[in-house]
Amino acid sequence: MTADLAGAGRAPGSLDLSNVVIGVLGGTGDQGRGLARRLSIAGHRVIIGSRSADRAAAAAAELGGGPLLDGGLNHYAATEADVVIAAIPWEGHKDLLADLAEALARKLVIDCVNPLGFDAHGAYPISVPEGSAAQQAAAVLPASTVVGAFHHVSAQLLLDPEVDSMDLDVLVLGDDRAATDLVIAIAGEIPGMRGVYGGRLRNCGQVEALTANLVSINRRYKAHAGIRITDV
Amino acid sequence: MTADLAGAGRAPGSLDLSNVVIGVLGGTGDQGRGLARRLSIAGHRVIIGSRSADRAAAAAAELGGGPLLDGGLNHYAATEADVVIAAIPWEGHKDLLADLAEALARKLVIDCVNPLGFDAHGAYPISVPEGSAAQQAAAVLPASTVVGAFHHVSAQLLLDPEVDSMDLDVLVLGDDRAATDLVIAIAGEIPGMRGVYGGRLRNCGQVEALTANLVSINRRYKAHAGIRITDV
Repeated sequence: MTADLAGAGRAPGSLDLSNVVIGVLGGTGDQGRGLARRLSIAGHRVIIGSRSADRAAAAAAELGGGPLLDGGLNHYAATEADVVIAAIPWEGHKDLLADLAEALARKLVIDCVNPLGFDAHGAYPISVPEGSAAQQAAAVLPASTVVGAFHHVSAQLLLDPEVDSMDLDVLVLGDDRAATDLVIAIAGEIPGMRGVYGGRLRNCGQVEALTANLVSINRRYKAHAGIRITDV
Repeated sequence: MTADLAGAGRAPGSLDLSNVVIGVLGGTGDQGRGLARRLSIAGHRVIIGSRSADRAAAAAAELGGGPLLDGGLNHYAATEADVVIAAIPWEGHKDLLADLAEALARKLVIDCVNPLGFDAHGAYPISVPEGSAAQQAAAVLPASTVVGAFHHVSAQLLLDPEVDSMDLDVLVLGDDRAATDLVIAIAGEIPGMRGVYGGRLRNCGQVEALTANLVSINRRYKAHAGIRITDV
């Protein structure tokens, strides 16, 4: 897909990591705020997007504000950014992305959404017709490059100012090598975190669903579990 | 389920780890031989099962034989053992277990089968009507206690005499606490390996499918990747 988009001048392979502007759709949620916080600390301009510009601005201010952190409507975040993280609820995922398809065209979209249900026994994966949230994003964003990543990161640890290092690997999935390489590099900017290529997008469903297992592990062991890949 | 089986006297909670006899269905395959090798080294009597008694005996002899390693028909392995590992191909999984349902009744069955397909792009998960291989096993073995485990273990490393420590955690999934505790203990007998509770059986599908991601990782990084759970 990169080759087709190269004419637009913002294909993943043409982006310089240090200058990448990052938008976070649904950036007022815990996961979105946590990633926004860590990536602005890493030196990126980050724009928190929300359905409410006021809530987005408040979230940016609450995280310390400053010249690198900004907030606005999801559409604004999508338009201003080079790389857009979808940290939105599974409920409404498809429609929200479809509404932003034009603003997200020729951009790299990182989907970190986990389609999970919860009941008395804990979490379980919700079956997704497209195979995964990331594949659903790719289906409704045909002019964007979609990568799956950041599924297993604890929002609580991302937001905790006492935690200066995240102890986990981030599996990065996608069909475009330049795009997955860039997201691996972005993940590596957060101290302790390492991006590891995790396969093509068709193998993203089980990575999203594995979050249900981490919920079970957290409950059993009173932990904030993550995963590390050995021998890599 | 344990409570219902307690009258039979072999419920998981009543087993003493050090005396557990382990059968390995499909034990002539790489995964089966690898687990048989490591578990006999750990001190268990292990019976390699196969559709061919001769091939099973040959596999046991090739692994060093001795009083702890034995081979025979799958039915013999199922009958003699307390704990039976299903290390059989996905193709035929359901029928093979259904045929052994009576021999496996009131036993702990560990399913380590990964329903994967392979094409030019690598591995991908095969959709299982029951949700996972382990849930399929539970469906055809209503009188057994089924646990999912050992999905991500590299057969090559298990079989390599130069490798004396396995660097990975084994996710152990099941709905019976005594059974998952016992399998966690068995996994912990193999040096370097650690058993970690990974959730209920309904969350086993993504753990099986994650093997496709490990195949992708192995290909990209020229590794024998495993996973570790952090903060546990």
